[in-house]
Amino acid sequence: MGKAGTGNFLEDFRAGQEIRHATPRTLTEGDAALYLALTGSRFAQGCCEPLARAAGLPRSPLDDLLVFHTVFGKTVPDMSLNAVANLGYADGRFLAPVYPGDTLEAVSTVLGLKENSNRQTGIVWVRTTGRKATGEPVLDYVRWVMVRKRDAAAAVAEAAPPDLPAFVPSERLVIPQGLRAAPVDPAVTGSPWLWEDYEVGERIDHVDGMGVMESEHRLATRLYQNTARVHFNDHVEKAGRLGRTIVYGGVVISLARSLSFNGLGNAQNILAINAGRHVNPCVAGDTVRAWSEVLAKAELGPDLGALRLRLVATRDRPCRDFPLLDAAGRHLPEVLLDLDYWVLMQRRR
Amino acid sequence: MGKAGTGNFLEDFRAGQEIRHATPRTLTEGDAALYLALTGSRFAQGCCEPLARAAGLPRSPLDDLLVFHTVFGKTVPDMSLNAVANLGYADGRFLAPVYPGDTLEAVSTVLGLKENSNRQTGIVWVRTTGRKATGEPVLDYVRWVMVRKRDAAAAVAEAAPPDLPAFVPSERLVIPQGLRAAPVDPAVTGSPWLWEDYEVGERIDHVDGMGVMESEHRLATRLYQNTARVHFNDHVEKAGRLGRTIVYGGVVISLARSLSFNGLGNAQNILAINAGRHVNPCVAGDTVRAWSEVLAKAELGPDLGALRLRLVATRDRPCRDFPLLDAAGRHLPEVLLDLDYWVLMQRRR
Amino acid sequence: MGKAGTGNFLEDFRAGQEIRHATPRTLTEGDAALYLALTGSRFAQGCCEPLARAAGLPRSPLDDLLVFHTVFGKTVPDMSLNAVANLGYADGRFLAPVYPGDTLEAVSTVLGLKENSNRQTGIVWVRTTGRKATGEPVLDYVRWVMVRKRDAAAAVAEAAPPDLPAFVPSERLVIPQGLRAAPVDPAVTGSPWLWEDYEVGERIDHVDGMGVMESEHRLATRLYQNTARVHFNDHVEKAGRLGRTIVYGGVVISLARSLSFNGLGNAQNILAINAGRHVNPCVAGDTVRAWSEVLAKAELGPDLGALRLRLVATRDRPCRDFPLLDAAGRHLPEVLLDLDYWVLMQRRR
Repeated sequence: MGKAGTGNFLEDFRAGQEIRHATPRTLTEGDAALYLALTGSRFAQGCCEPLARAAGLPRSPLDDLLVFHTVFGKTVPDMSLNAVANLGYADGRFLAPVYPGDTLEAVSTVLGLKENSNRQTGIVWVRTTGRKATGEPVLDYVRWVMVRKRDAAAAVAEAAPPDLPAFVPSERLVIPQGLRAAPVDPAVTGSPWLWEDYEVGERIDHVDGMGVMESEHRLATRLYQNTARVHFNDHVEKAGRLGRTIVYGGVVISLARSLSFNGLGNAQNILAINAGRHVNPCVAGDTVRAWSEVLAKAELGPDLGALRLRLVATRDRPCRDFPLLDAAGRHLPEVLLDLDYWVLMQRRR
Repeated sequence: MGKAGTGNFLEDFRAGQEIRHATPRTLTEGDAALYLALTGSRFAQGCCEPLARAAGLPRSPLDDLLVFHTVFGKTVPDMSLNAVANLGYADGRFLAPVYPGDTLEAVSTVLGLKENSNRQTGIVWVRTTGRKATGEPVLDYVRWVMVRKRDAAAAVAEAAPPDLPAFVPSERLVIPQGLRAAPVDPAVTGSPWLWEDYEVGERIDHVDGMGVMESEHRLATRLYQNTARVHFNDHVEKAGRLGRTIVYGGVVISLARSLSFNGLGNAQNILAINAGRHVNPCVAGDTVRAWSEVLAKAELGPDLGALRLRLVATRDRPCRDFPLLDAAGRHLPEVLLDLDYWVLMQRRR
Repeated sequence: MGKAGTGNFLEDFRAGQEIRHATPRTLTEGDAALYLALTGSRFAQGCCEPLARAAGLPRSPLDDLLVFHTVFGKTVPDMSLNAVANLGYADGRFLAPVYPGDTLEAVSTVLGLKENSNRQTGIVWVRTTGRKATGEPVLDYVRWVMVRKRDAAAAVAEAAPPDLPAFVPSERLVIPQGLRAAPVDPAVTGSPWLWEDYEVGERIDHVDGMGVMESEHRLATRLYQNTARVHFNDHVEKAGRLGRTIVYGGVVISLARSLSFNGLGNAQNILAINAGRHVNPCVAGDTVRAWSEVLAKAELGPDLGALRLRLVATRDRPCRDFPLLDAAGRHLPEVLLDLDYWVLMQRRR
């Protein structure tokens, strides 16, 4: 192996293996501004310092998804440089807010390994923890990814996939340190609707659409220091399956979350990522729309609650009819993302 | 109405109605850097801290147009989500510099309402004030916009349009707090020309051209949290009048102002927006050029003066012949912007 | 000449002439975030505050190439607005790290002048120094550029080209103030390889490729306040030699340097630019790849060393066979950049 490295292949992983990922990253107000310009996020806690302070935080935290993508990006050179596909997320929890000036590190532990019958590829399950340079964990999640083998003949140290919860139970949700309920003013947050106003089963069309352009998804993905080649190497990807680079799935998550402001303006911190799949690829030129379904509700105290939401993103298709599955139960080709997450929302006082 | 909201239609407005717009926005050094990268602005006060301090300011203020676009952006979900066209600006004054760390809020008052004879649309006049979270006003302007009706049959509470001044008289211009004349060094500001060097009637071709690309105008417009669909929803706009998204008019204003550095390097703070119209739409691919005419001059004290400038932006057309109107007195199709504003400039001491 | 200025032509220069360039520029964390998003740089010193402090620095310095491009950008309106081509760099040294909050100024001295036999153009050699507002120099380099004459008949004050060193001798390299060797942890820097691990003559393929898109190169070039028209005026350049705007050569340098993380993760500060040429133009759509050759090694003390590297960037061509020259000794058409620089790297302790 040359000095440039070629990433790990399936046969390089072992269950129990711990991998510390380079490079730690100090996030700043500059990253926050870029995240806003790339996503158009309007959630008030992230862009309005007085509101963040009124809610008991020292200042506006960085967007939870900026934190997620930064931690995820660090894992790419070790975990998914030779990936065929990112198959899913589970059991993800946000454990502490991250502020400008904090430095994030990422460390992963291999949980399970399974070779595919073709012996060319297989699946790796891995738990990744993001933490501050102080050691404080900020994020913890499992993902599984289909990875190539370097050598089809090589032996793979198979290990049973982990037992993953269908969703994070509400008792395990962590309320951001210091956060308290603050008076909600629709002129500040853009929405009068609080936790009590949402019902399980309710669906919300987020109305707007956001086109994704080449430069936008690449600026975002570089901001996260995610080096996966499929997002950047136009010369190679022109000859590939899609005829162009593929948009990092996290870009779609961020756009869908940003669009969800229309109807979920008072959704505050993301508390957990229960499950998630990028069911179809997104490429530049696609217009992302989104809708949400309230899957469950949980009380987190007298003033705070959580909504468990299904967030679905589509491309080039309005969401007023909440597109998701076809008659056979498969995701429609226009569906990009099917994400299940918990978000914090204040209760009426 | 669902939780996502659909914005106000003509019949929803009443003269005297006050609307506080979500979401307040804390601007930072990150936003300043992005504004510079998006516009290429070179005016020294905004990018050279020592110069700003020599001029009596605590540090470099944020660009006046970044402030304007941020305040304007907040009004979009309430005022112009259902707009057909943004018709004009008048009586705009900048009242205080804004610094990184300041939080901007926007509040609007409806001034007048007029239904069009087709009963499908009408015009709303509104005065918008941007202020800091401390309550200090930073910006005040009137705009009028053509808005759709939800229901053609609905009654409209017509109210006479406001009486608007043709321009802000120089006595009403507000010199930024603390600002004083500092020695002008062309090696710092890029120009030896001061207030005395400009004559009423003088025209200046700003020479350079700046192409507008899809990602650039969208990054800017998202930075301003301006959610107007015509700028972002490619899927819908492909089937629209222009066959693509339209560039937010404020992007054109910023590019033209940035280009005006060539010939107006010592133009400092914008003091007023007297009038302005986006006379033709701009789309990605257009190359913006600009020229200025000195409309008037005013003394603001022994050391400071103001120039009242007409700033004209064109697309795909050089400005050495100062293109503006055709023989019939209509704006040429290559003209994008016709803006009338006051700018502060030092006098010779 | 109108107030807008038209830049200097060949006959406007004189050997010994000193030109102070507008506008000084205060760089911030916002610029650092943009630089990272535009280049994808992962070198740890620049994005990991704890590492920078462990290495004796007060905080993460701004990327050396951000500093270079900022200083270079300031020279454009005076030196190369009427340039035909930027021919080369030599004798460049980085003299002090630059931190967020520092303000950069640029001043140039004309070293030599030579008219071409066609009398339409000629070559100017110039030494440019970048310094902080405090007067501390941060960067010093020579470049030469082919410039148009305003008037072919005009006399040119020819002056002998300067005697330029083939490379900066290692004794003249300046170790950044305060920098000391810190324990190297591959989980932090992404690489286990230190100064001792590199051999003269060794070549490294940096493996990845990075496509350059229109908006990305223009955002970068505006961030550097580089106003050269060939990068921005699509209307004019559509009819030009390449049929589109050309990518600022500095963008290619930055992308190649960023890619060189793959194999040179422990390369720290750039100490010198020995020589460099943009041998072919880059346009949007090109995918940049890069490879390096170790040209020389130097000890800078018991803990620190320097590598003299040749950094070659290509477009749309993998670098596993290290493409450079054709049989006739000319650069291949796929080669964009041939750069010779010194970089600091720690030694094993």
